[in-house]
Amino acid sequence: MRPSPVTERLRVTYRVTCGAGEDPAAKAQDIAYEQTVELPPGCVSPDVAARVVGRVEAVEPAGDGSWTAVVSFDRGLAGDDLGQIVNLLFGNISMKTGVLLSEIAWPETLLAQLGGPGFGIEGLRALAGVQRRPMLCAALKPLGLSARELAEICFQFALGGIDVVKDDHGLADQETAPFRERVERCQAAVARANRETGGRSIYFPHVTGPVAALRERADFARRSGCRGVLVSPLLVGLDTVRDLRSSGLAVMAHPALAGGFFNQGHGIAAGVLLGDLFRVAGSDAVIYPNVGGRFTLSAASCEAINASLRRPLGPLKPAFPAPAGGIDAARVPEWIDRYGVDTIFLIGGSLYAQQDLAGASRRLLEAVRRHCDE
Amino acid sequence: MRPSPVTERLRVTYRVTCGAGEDPAAKAQDIAYEQTVELPPGCVSPDVAARVVGRVEAVEPAGDGSWTAVVSFDRGLAGDDLGQIVNLLFGNISMKTGVLLSEIAWPETLLAQLGGPGFGIEGLRALAGVQRRPMLCAALKPLGLSARELAEICFQFALGGIDVVKDDHGLADQETAPFRERVERCQAAVARANRETGGRSIYFPHVTGPVAALRERADFARRSGCRGVLVSPLLVGLDTVRDLRSSGLAVMAHPALAGGFFNQGHGIAAGVLLGDLFRVAGSDAVIYPNVGGRFTLSAASCEAINASLRRPLGPLKPAFPAPAGGIDAARVPEWIDRYGVDTIFLIGGSLYAQQDLAGASRRLLEAVRRHCDE
Repeated sequence: MRPSPVTERLRVTYRVTCGAGEDPAAKAQDIAYEQTVELPPGCVSPDVAARVVGRVEAVEPAGDGSWTAVVSFDRGLAGDDLGQIVNLLFGNISMKTGVLLSEIAWPETLLAQLGGPGFGIEGLRALAGVQRRPMLCAALKPLGLSARELAEICFQFALGGIDVVKDDHGLADQETAPFRERVERCQAAVARANRETGGRSIYFPHVTGPVAALRERADFARRSGCRGVLVSPLLVGLDTVRDLRSSGLAVMAHPALAGGFFNQGHGIAAGVLLGDLFRVAGSDAVIYPNVGGRFTLSAASCEAINASLRRPLGPLKPAFPAPAGGIDAARVPEWIDRYGVDTIFLIGGSLYAQQDLAGASRRLLEAVRRHCDE
Repeated sequence: MRPSPVTERLRVTYRVTCGAGEDPAAKAQDIAYEQTVELPPGCVSPDVAARVVGRVEAVEPAGDGSWTAVVSFDRGLAGDDLGQIVNLLFGNISMKTGVLLSEIAWPETLLAQLGGPGFGIEGLRALAGVQRRPMLCAALKPLGLSARELAEICFQFALGGIDVVKDDHGLADQETAPFRERVERCQAAVARANRETGGRSIYFPHVTGPVAALRERADFARRSGCRGVLVSPLLVGLDTVRDLRSSGLAVMAHPALAGGFFNQGHGIAAGVLLGDLFRVAGSDAVIYPNVGGRFTLSAASCEAINASLRRPLGPLKPAFPAPAGGIDAARVPEWIDRYGVDTIFLIGGSLYAQQDLAGASRRLLEAVRRHCDE
């Protein structure tokens, strides 16, 4: 595990690729100006330049033809405003080329202000009563079913011992399964299953919508007995995660839209976006598309997300990585060996393909328990 | 100008690039399933498949080795929830490869629900008393100056006749220039300049921050006499634009972070993201990095943004394109010929480089007036 990357200034590493006629040092300097004063050096007073402009700390060849540029920023430039932090890191330079935001070292004081996960790995384990083994998650789907039908699926998953049953992130407040009805029915279904099994499965509804509606929905979920919610930070704004955390709910974050940033030489590295940023915003668990599934993240990116979510980071609690997107239930033990027990495995299609959801879930849970000697 | 793209279903065009072993028809089908039910066809009942799964309407070669795939979605799938609409358009498939969201045809009923710009081009013209010529905008910067210093710059721009003076989007609520103090001083400066000139310059502060703070800041701006605000939709959530519109303020949108989506064969086309999506959310003007400036949009992308913001679109008002990012004041007449008068030209560095801001602004305004025979 990497050491705690805690620093005085916000220290940002960019992987820089130069086009014809471009110079890596000049490109690093451009990042330092573009992300702060947005003016050429000649238009900035020496005082502002010293206080505000980013400092190029290092520019070194990365070995593959690209360069590693480290630029540090005064931690006060964006305050604890998450949107502005993202802006400082990648706002304007997103519109240039050949700049990949690849690592962040955070000032301890900023981390303390941001707060991070409210529950973290230990807190989520406590909610679901899972001590040592990896946790299991399944998604309610498809969109188009009624609230009653979704609740029945929820019941089956909980009956089979799935720890966290979450809404599919396409579920919002559609007429087919309105939010409030869905939450009440699914929460009741999980409670009923728990009474039958003596288990402690939990249900996380997906909260969406206009600014005001989202918080209202989260509050409704809490009043209905839910202990956490699913949210898609890139659809509703990263700061929404922090707002939800302050409501006392656990937050599982969905990566919808994140892939727009995952490009070879330009964008935001998956470990930074889904690891660092989702965690500092307050996600207790972060779903990501696992390597080898339906999506295209590399093994290295998946490992980087895991590491960023779990590594020591000032006062922040570690968060659960939740690999998903086509994980075969039969291969979960293999993934446990690879990713470790502090992982939530989100299994979808391969449970649905087995028809008997409770039975399929039970077999999966038993396999995990056996594999972890429980 | 393209005809009004109004349809029954949400009709989405993707530019699809196939890797080795990929088939364009299968890839289109995958989009239709992945963006709705997130299950393979075998796990979806015929009823849900008919109601919910996207319909592949066409798959045709695009002539350059890529394919054009048209997939239509039931307009009720995401309701009028902007975050979920973005999710339906590109949420999960963002994490695949070779899929570029390149055009949207909107159902009229959905457009009516979304509402679009509150002011639009005519409304913004009325606010600033500009009848026929293009409007001029300048940004207050750099970050690091005090509220008093920024207000002095604001005064100079307004004195020179700049129509809209906006905060740089790095300005939030920093200690150097706290939001409330900045708004009061800048708004007072513009009012004072207007009294001197008889003009009608307006000041748009940048509103940021946690969900609750943002709306509070916008309300404070309105109470202080501001008629509009600047917001960065991708930093704070697209739906925030709609929330601001409902507050009665005009909204100028900043593209920070947008560049993450602008990739050759995968992402969201600039005309869709900054044109369609920012407009349906309610932006009255949309800033974008102009071709030939510091950033990297192509001429075709800039024209596409202009067209998407201005084209007839059901009941929606047209919005102002605001090209920016290194426009040389001396070349504005040229850009007027190219982009037309329904444009806001956002001039930054090249005014600052002239030191005497009021004089530089006045010369620019006079050049624009002469060019437009006013």
